[in-house]
Amino acid sequence: MKARASSLQALGEKGLLHVLTRHWKARSKRVLTGVGDDCAVLRGEGKDHYLLFKTDAVVENVHFTRQAAPEKIGRKALARALSDLAAMGAMPVAAVITLGLRADESPQRLRAIYRGMEKTAKTYGVDLVGGETTRAEQLFLNIALLGECRGYRPVLRSGARAGDFLFVTGRLGGTQAARHLTFEPRLAEGQWLARQSFATALMDLSDGLGADLPRLAEASGVGFQLDESAIPRARGVSLQAALNDGEDYELLFTVKAARAETLKKVWPFATPLHCIGVMRKGRKNPADPLIAHGFDHFKQRRGGAGFRRKLGG
Amino acid sequence: MKARASSLQALGEKGLLHVLTRHWKARSKRVLTGVGDDCAVLRGEGKDHYLLFKTDAVVENVHFTRQAAPEKIGRKALARALSDLAAMGAMPVAAVITLGLRADESPQRLRAIYRGMEKTAKTYGVDLVGGETTRAEQLFLNIALLGECRGYRPVLRSGARAGDFLFVTGRLGGTQAARHLTFEPRLAEGQWLARQSFATALMDLSDGLGADLPRLAEASGVGFQLDESAIPRARGVSLQAALNDGEDYELLFTVKAARAETLKKVWPFATPLHCIGVMRKGRKNPADPLIAHGFDHFKQRRGGAGFRRKLGG
Repeated sequence: MKARASSLQALGEKGLLHVLTRHWKARSKRVLTGVGDDCAVLRGEGKDHYLLFKTDAVVENVHFTRQAAPEKIGRKALARALSDLAAMGAMPVAAVITLGLRADESPQRLRAIYRGMEKTAKTYGVDLVGGETTRAEQLFLNIALLGECRGYRPVLRSGARAGDFLFVTGRLGGTQAARHLTFEPRLAEGQWLARQSFATALMDLSDGLGADLPRLAEASGVGFQLDESAIPRARGVSLQAALNDGEDYELLFTVKAARAETLKKVWPFATPLHCIGVMRKGRKNPADPLIAHGFDHFKQRRGGAGFRRKLGG
Repeated sequence: MKARASSLQALGEKGLLHVLTRHWKARSKRVLTGVGDDCAVLRGEGKDHYLLFKTDAVVENVHFTRQAAPEKIGRKALARALSDLAAMGAMPVAAVITLGLRADESPQRLRAIYRGMEKTAKTYGVDLVGGETTRAEQLFLNIALLGECRGYRPVLRSGARAGDFLFVTGRLGGTQAARHLTFEPRLAEGQWLARQSFATALMDLSDGLGADLPRLAEASGVGFQLDESAIPRARGVSLQAALNDGEDYELLFTVKAARAETLKKVWPFATPLHCIGVMRKGRKNPADPLIAHGFDHFKQRRGGAGFRRKLGG
């Protein structure tokens, strides 16, 4: 990837982030994981205490339409950041919110958006502790989230080893049409997987399995083999959509082969659990035209409604 | 203040934030200070360890013009958030950044913006540990900042008592014209004031003394009497501008009368220090047409350049 790419289109979202941050080196030994995982991880106080730190924004006409129910906009804003804590097995602690808004915005709509955040915060046990507002030409909500692991370690993307089995929660695909505003961040599942030391690597699916699985594999320095017939699909969703739709917010994780059967037996959640492949030696992955698409909101062409659309296969 | 105000113009920025957040109650006992101070404060681990948490955004055409030097844009974004840590006497730890950008944005400009943040991070000892990007119609940078106090308590806005002397660092006014991109967050000064237990109440001046001092007084449940002739002004700046210009990013704080002379003697910084008044009993403040203006970016009329302007007196 070139540092001096001439356009964003050529770089894509991940390419841009790479260009902007790849030379960052933490000064403090407290920083265990910076850019590149779902959250930053800082050493806390004492053994097995970790602080997790995340920022995430939703923007009108990018992550939701003007017509979306305001409470659901607030819900989504917070739930997306919570999903990133789930993606490392952490507990949420506190959130601060930046609201960017137009001068002609309706206070009633904003109250409803905040009500959605407040309900979501209550549901998932996070305290809303601060807020700022700023003028903007387009409504946005930025959520900064502090989480922690106490008595266990957060699970990184980089822990998968050849031979580990690959699992996914829930059913993939079709989320943008059906539930991109109402998905459940898998906090309880993520925490359980981390506490029980089942997951060797863990992330959440935000850009689609086809884009996210290669990231987990790359971070771990291994390849993968997918059993496409085993990929759980949402009702009426094609394999291609299950691979390439964004915004699943399900957990993708690896488990040592010897523990995979136990995991299936003791899994305590109603959330579906499926084994969909195995991690392989080497960093080359089987050439598969369905893989390595996924969602990139700089590269995509945009529809008339201004709402983000999945890439065609 | 009415909850159901019909427009943002009527509410103003602080009024809106009040309507959106005044009913928030922290669930966890770890939350010491939520909305209403410069940062949220959480109890850390053990005695006298506190975590501070802040979010702040800068938006193109609101906080900087398209023509501003990109490195200075990055500098300002981070320095504003750092000033909020200074405003409680805390040390910075780590920051995560959300970048909102147009599809036609230049990667070179973004690199320069990030360079400005990186240099500022290095100068003030904060680690940049994470970043996200999102599409937006207007460039924005949201900084979420984690700070701490270790071995001493952060200083709140609410600790001023009648009889305390009122101090300010630096010189006020004219910042938007001269140095709104290059101001120095008063981190060392804030930490020193907190560690030495000089400051009974502390905040930073972002909206102008005329708007911010009444907030400190209100949070503390006291009034104030300003000695207008003692207010340090930047060169060529009128008293009115020194009171009402925004973006000073200087520290405003109170000190027990008995310690005020000592403070002046032992103040170890080159930064100017001035005593500008005294806190009084009662919540009524002397009627002063210069006070209680200050900057509000929802209420203001906007100039042709799209850049925020101070309110007229």
